[in-house]
Amino acid sequence: MTIKLYGLAMSTCTARVLTCLHEYGAEFELVPVNMLGGEHKQPDFLAKNPFGQIPALEDDDLTLFESRAMSSYVAEKFKGSGCDLLRTENLKEAALVKTWMEVESQQLGPAIAPIIYQYFLVPMQGGSTNQALVDESSEKVGKVLDVYEKKLSSTKYLAGDFYSLADLHHLSYLYYLMKTPCAKLINERPHVKAWWEDISSRPAFKTVASGMTLGEK
Amino acid sequence: MTIKLYGLAMSTCTARVLTCLHEYGAEFELVPVNMLGGEHKQPDFLAKNPFGQIPALEDDDLTLFESRAMSSYVAEKFKGSGCDLLRTENLKEAALVKTWMEVESQQLGPAIAPIIYQYFLVPMQGGSTNQALVDESSEKVGKVLDVYEKKLSSTKYLAGDFYSLADLHHLSYLYYLMKTPCAKLINERPHVKAWWEDISSRPAFKTVASGMTLGEK
Repeated sequence: MTIKLYGLAMSTCTARVLTCLHEYGAEFELVPVNMLGGEHKQPDFLAKNPFGQIPALEDDDLTLFESRAMSSYVAEKFKGSGCDLLRTENLKEAALVKTWMEVESQQLGPAIAPIIYQYFLVPMQGGSTNQALVDESSEKVGKVLDVYEKKLSSTKYLAGDFYSLADLHHLSYLYYLMKTPCAKLINERPHVKAWWEDISSRPAFKTVASGMTLGEK
Repeated sequence: MTIKLYGLAMSTCTARVLTCLHEYGAEFELVPVNMLGGEHKQPDFLAKNPFGQIPALEDDDLTLFESRAMSSYVAEKFKGSGCDLLRTENLKEAALVKTWMEVESQQLGPAIAPIIYQYFLVPMQGGSTNQALVDESSEKVGKVLDVYEKKLSSTKYLAGDFYSLADLHHLSYLYYLMKTPCAKLINERPHVKAWWEDISSRPAFKTVASGMTLGEK
């Protein structure tokens, strides 16, 4: 049975899982969820994701929610394909991958999220971007990226000299960040910029990025 | 070489890793960090955790930060001991463990954190608990716990009928929450309450809880 991913190509969390599926060349079906119509709050969808958020994933009798858990599952399921984004064969490398996955989840993601919300979602709801909130978040993002800049001056990717799920998890938030004036936070840090250009040019993500149309008319 | 955990027994994130180490009966040394003296912002400590936060873990030549990555590493390292809190042998169970680890990290943790901050850390800094903020957070925690209540009415633990790292990750935040008036959020949900009583009575956590003295004179 083909994996079913319920979500929207333009959503950051859906895009995270899509990128992982494309890296492994996995067979899957993207099933659109009518968010404007409130489909994600209806019983059918809540049975898939009890928090009423996208995405949700079904694989045979397994139902998953939380995008970072889904990408880990996909990486674990297909690790025999020759690509192992979790570095499962090496206990220490795997621990470093987990560490930088947590950094995305706990440090950079929460700092970037308000910027994406202000630039893309607030205007869609008819509001105006709150510049004071953007400035406050930009300062936080900058401090976190200073740590990335130092790390990426010693290794090509976050967990070492290998592309991993830790790098992949950053792509969707950074893609939208790069479409805002806050792109300078990446561009003014040479090692972060080189890393971004490297990871965002991978074919799997380029396919996904073509569907990331949030904010476009 | 013995694992070194740099942190404080009373800290929620340190306690998360300590609980995991005790579950596996791992040999380790807890190295206190003088937070009041600003040790965590000094170069020696920043070399261990570049974000200047506790805990940090050293195992031989490996240095880790982010508590959830550390506990996953400990569970992976000692899984041959007969205890496998990650359910690594079963792809689907492992995915459900990861899912509920993410729920703690993305949903319940962020909702509880402001309550712990208001009840324990603000008074230590000479301030008063902001009741409006507590009320707002309590409402969020309640909504998340409604999902837990439903889930725990069908399985004994979060990821299934087995204790896992997903349950363990909740212990330290919930322990402090239970020392506040917000304990009612747990007590008024029978399945959540039974689950809490079960997981908090495990010997590994009872050992750790004896050192969780935040807010005590």
